[in-house]
Amino acid sequence: MASRDDRKILLSESEMPTQWYNIVPDLPAPPPPALHPGTLEPAGPADFEPLFPMALIMQEVSMDQYIDIPGEVLDVYRMWRPSPLYRARGLEKALDTPARIYYKYEGVSPAGSHKPNTAVPQAYYNKAEGITKLTTETGAGQWGTALAFACAIFDMTCEVWQVRSSYDQKPYRKAMIETFGGVIHPSPSDLTEAGRAILQANPASPGSLGIAISEAVEMAAPNPDVKYALGSVLNHVLMHQTIIGEEALLQLAMVEETPDVLVGCTGGGSNFGGLAFPFMREKMAGKMDPRVIAVEPAACPSLTKGVYAYDFGDTAGMTPLMKMHTLGHDFVPDPIHAGGLRYHGMAPLISHIYELGMMDAISINQTECFEAGVQFARTEGIVPAPEPTHALAGTIRQALEAKESGEERVILTALCGHGHLDMAAYDRYFSGDMVDYDFPEEKVQDAMNRIPSV
Amino acid sequence: MASRDDRKILLSESEMPTQWYNIVPDLPAPPPPALHPGTLEPAGPADFEPLFPMALIMQEVSMDQYIDIPGEVLDVYRMWRPSPLYRARGLEKALDTPARIYYKYEGVSPAGSHKPNTAVPQAYYNKAEGITKLTTETGAGQWGTALAFACAIFDMTCEVWQVRSSYDQKPYRKAMIETFGGVIHPSPSDLTEAGRAILQANPASPGSLGIAISEAVEMAAPNPDVKYALGSVLNHVLMHQTIIGEEALLQLAMVEETPDVLVGCTGGGSNFGGLAFPFMREKMAGKMDPRVIAVEPAACPSLTKGVYAYDFGDTAGMTPLMKMHTLGHDFVPDPIHAGGLRYHGMAPLISHIYELGMMDAISINQTECFEAGVQFARTEGIVPAPEPTHALAGTIRQALEAKESGEERVILTALCGHGHLDMAAYDRYFSGDMVDYDFPEEKVQDAMNRIPSV
Repeated sequence: MASRDDRKILLSESEMPTQWYNIVPDLPAPPPPALHPGTLEPAGPADFEPLFPMALIMQEVSMDQYIDIPGEVLDVYRMWRPSPLYRARGLEKALDTPARIYYKYEGVSPAGSHKPNTAVPQAYYNKAEGITKLTTETGAGQWGTALAFACAIFDMTCEVWQVRSSYDQKPYRKAMIETFGGVIHPSPSDLTEAGRAILQANPASPGSLGIAISEAVEMAAPNPDVKYALGSVLNHVLMHQTIIGEEALLQLAMVEETPDVLVGCTGGGSNFGGLAFPFMREKMAGKMDPRVIAVEPAACPSLTKGVYAYDFGDTAGMTPLMKMHTLGHDFVPDPIHAGGLRYHGMAPLISHIYELGMMDAISINQTECFEAGVQFARTEGIVPAPEPTHALAGTIRQALEAKESGEERVILTALCGHGHLDMAAYDRYFSGDMVDYDFPEEKVQDAMNRIPSV
Repeated sequence: MASRDDRKILLSESEMPTQWYNIVPDLPAPPPPALHPGTLEPAGPADFEPLFPMALIMQEVSMDQYIDIPGEVLDVYRMWRPSPLYRARGLEKALDTPARIYYKYEGVSPAGSHKPNTAVPQAYYNKAEGITKLTTETGAGQWGTALAFACAIFDMTCEVWQVRSSYDQKPYRKAMIETFGGVIHPSPSDLTEAGRAILQANPASPGSLGIAISEAVEMAAPNPDVKYALGSVLNHVLMHQTIIGEEALLQLAMVEETPDVLVGCTGGGSNFGGLAFPFMREKMAGKMDPRVIAVEPAACPSLTKGVYAYDFGDTAGMTPLMKMHTLGHDFVPDPIHAGGLRYHGMAPLISHIYELGMMDAISINQTECFEAGVQFARTEGIVPAPEPTHALAGTIRQALEAKESGEERVILTALCGHGHLDMAAYDRYFSGDMVDYDFPEEKVQDAMNRIPSV
């Protein structure tokens, strides 16, 4: 029997949820549709067909509350799922807080993050529609690794464009993607028109997720056997991640806890949404009342400093227009170590939910985040990836607030990945060379001026 | 309920074994004692006192069949234990074998290997006897990371000498050891007499575990507040690792399996012994009859090509003499990527058991091992460390043999760690630059000539 005093709360494979949760039909207002960039009319399934298989497009626009996870996907999930829910007893003790801190750990997956939760079904549905190759972008490299793994499992080819600043900082990612059978290029590359245009303007461009998306899309769209896979932002991606929150609900129920606060980091929003959406459903049903907090990097604060507007998902302006919190589609964030959070926009679904007032957002600088990461490693034994150090820094703030007020606050956070392939960032932190970037107000304003007026 | 068709077989924290198993009293003949290097008399507890706390020395010579794991150690073990037992269904399918392959995975630990199983109790017993600092050597870095973690948990200082060839190949290890609060030096270093002597003879020395041990011992022995910790070889270290085998016995029993073959990799022998000893107990009791196979690297084949003789544990000849399979205490193995297997000797207890005919040994070259590691990663989703790729290569040979003969062979192997911090080795493998070293017959013969005659 699991108890609150255990270090970890485990589910057996037979207890794993068998459906993803789609929050859209439960929301008090529907999210604004994506628009075709030419006609500015709502984009239909056909507009997405060059990039995605029909099964995923139908999930993207689905109004079903639940979607069955295919058996073949469940079987692959079982390689690492259900993932453990940990009670952070070591961290609680170090903080001397009355708060009880739980973290849902996705670092047990093959890629070391939550990303395989969507990479596996995306590869599966593509394979089922006869696709032989997937292209994608990756920031920190977690997504590229996840898709390479998923393609290995379903015997498909995988080609990855990695943001150059991350490619240079994290050389082990390349080896890991290759170990899973993938091919990887730094972005911007000279393999695409989008990449060449950027390189011509700035040969030393550190790249961005937006640029890398443009390259991967360009390589997929014209070829009927090749599709593109996105690791965050879209509705179907967030939905695949809800298995995280569904499991966490079961695990907390096993020890009779309901969270007072949920804290997650946000880049594109998929890990955050995956954790939060099932809890938001419970909240909408009046069964619990957690405060939900997104933590974003101060260098790329789309929710807290961006505008809510129609913008492109990529830098070159090839995607449909999506209404989201954006810093401008050609905004290039400073090269912080949390490469997975360097995205100019926020998932349209998260943006909509934020506008509905269902969640809060804050931004935190990277040195505070790494300080939290080191404290976490020394007390919990897991070295977190730079991305979830943002969630941990937010969690520690919450736990210290609870100490101040003497509250038994129950905090649930998402430790979306380990940092084993990000150790160069820790090296930098210890060397004293890590800098916090000022909020790049002028650069943001400049990029915002180029957001299309819709 | 766990089933053979599950991907993984889990125990809850409450099912974790609470005793270590000491195989010594169960053996048909007692192992030869360690000898004092000066008097050549059997070494007594006092001879070990400059290096180890009395609690560990008493465990080293214990004739108790079981030793209780202290509650404080159990509590730390619960951060990752019980570790999962996986059924390698993906690998089985790829090999098209009727064999059922199970692997006990220790990569879920904070250090990413089995090493914290002994690092934690070693730090605990030292702390209990008032020690404030531990020194040690590390090869691949797994042991140094484990001890740094254990010292962080018990608020002690940790100083690590890492074999230079590994230090240069695996820069992320340094950052990880520092993240856990440890201090790390490449070995040979100019901080010790032993290191300076080696550097004078060969400024480009790639180092070896034997040299690094000399350095760490030299820094600990004269200081009453500082002790030394060894990550393998000694009886008490192997005993701490038996929790691996004890858990695996319970897990296999849950799915009603008894192994026909056990396969483990051997460097110093601790992971191998930890898996095998509890099964050997069952075999001695007539309850099962597995064949037990050790796999060592062709470049450092102490069991298959060494002599069984009294030799030093370190290069400088500072340790007691131990009867073991050895290639000579000053043999420097070629810089294969499995740094953790580059040790001139084999644990005296494993050596004795090998002489008793209770196990077999084979050696395999590193390219066959990496090939096995890549196949494993693509089918099981876990990138193995270079060391356990030896166990995997041996396992694959067994599974293919079973295919040949059409046997339903049940194979149990030890996946003692992940390779996330060893990705440079995979990069090398894919680049085609990885070489197999010929067995260094002359170098071995030369070193064997300097084994003391006892």
